[in-house]
Amino acid sequence: MRVLGIDPGLRLTGYACIEGTRVKPSIIEAGVIRLDASDASNPSESIPRRLLELEGDLRELIERVMPEVVAVEGLFVHQKHVNTAVKMAHARGVMLLTIRRAGLRLVELKPMEIKTSLTGSGRANKAQVQEVVRRDFGLAEAPKPADVADALAIALCAMSRGGAPAGLGSGFGGGVGARGG
Amino acid sequence: MRVLGIDPGLRLTGYACIEGTRVKPSIIEAGVIRLDASDASNPSESIPRRLLELEGDLRELIERVMPEVVAVEGLFVHQKHVNTAVKMAHARGVMLLTIRRAGLRLVELKPMEIKTSLTGSGRANKAQVQEVVRRDFGLAEAPKPADVADALAIALCAMSRGGAPAGLGSGFGGGVGARGG
Repeated sequence: MRVLGIDPGLRLTGYACIEGTRVKPSIIEAGVIRLDASDASNPSESIPRRLLELEGDLRELIERVMPEVVAVEGLFVHQKHVNTAVKMAHARGVMLLTIRRAGLRLVELKPMEIKTSLTGSGRANKAQVQEVVRRDFGLAEAPKPADVADALAIALCAMSRGGAPAGLGSGFGGGVGARGG
Repeated sequence: MRVLGIDPGLRLTGYACIEGTRVKPSIIEAGVIRLDASDASNPSESIPRRLLELEGDLRELIERVMPEVVAVEGLFVHQKHVNTAVKMAHARGVMLLTIRRAGLRLVELKPMEIKTSLTGSGRANKAQVQEVVRRDFGLAEAPKPADVADALAIALCAMSRGGAPAGLGSGFGGGVGARGG
């Protein structure tokens, strides 16, 4: 199974395309989509431009690596970071659109599901998740930037589920909570 | 000047294309884009499908009415309605993408700017705004559903600004506050 994991962001989006099985996964391609924010002082101009760039980059990526399943982390909103979540959701909307238009299966995963799937604990910290990613792909170090490691973790979790949509159930793959994120 | 005003929503998006001047505006076309939410129990399926429908409908609308300027209300987040704002932002991202791809000028307006522009008061209620819309377009009644009246108000406000981008300045045309919305 070929899975593309995506860790969405408006400036930096981590991605990782992996293949094989959960026991023996291999990386096809991993990296970041970096969007130019040099004109960020004018959001009415810069945001639509970045969304258009993001759509183009993601479409090219999908055409290049041809995944069967695309896995994206569900958006969990901290009350403290509402503005960030709303900005992110703009980018996420464009990603879901692009995935759908490519006719691909979408899997949305809760942060806690990803942690549990990789480490056995929903309370694992970032370093523990990254260590599993490093070990399972036989890497000397955890991939940098962290967005790439996160995308690899998302892809691994989706692969262990066999690409099944999983029971988000909370409506829209997101929810408000003090924990998620 | 031909202005398209949009009041975004995931189920119901009001739109209004108007022409002329602020003193003598006329309606070219107004209505709603209604998205089928019948499979809403499976958000990982239904949201991307609705985003794709929304993009197609908005693109067709733009091609049909050919506006010079598209005006969208900035997204103001109530702490109480964070989930709604995040859902909305997915749709909004797709809209900004579509507007940008069509090469159109985007104007983002604060709710308070719209109210002030139409009624003279940033504290005007919905009924007062709708009454100005009804009067200025010489209609017997305020347009229904309210989403259409809102889109007409947005378009009128953008027209009175001559389509200038206005000073949102708060980053991303939105902010967290108890008032906006």
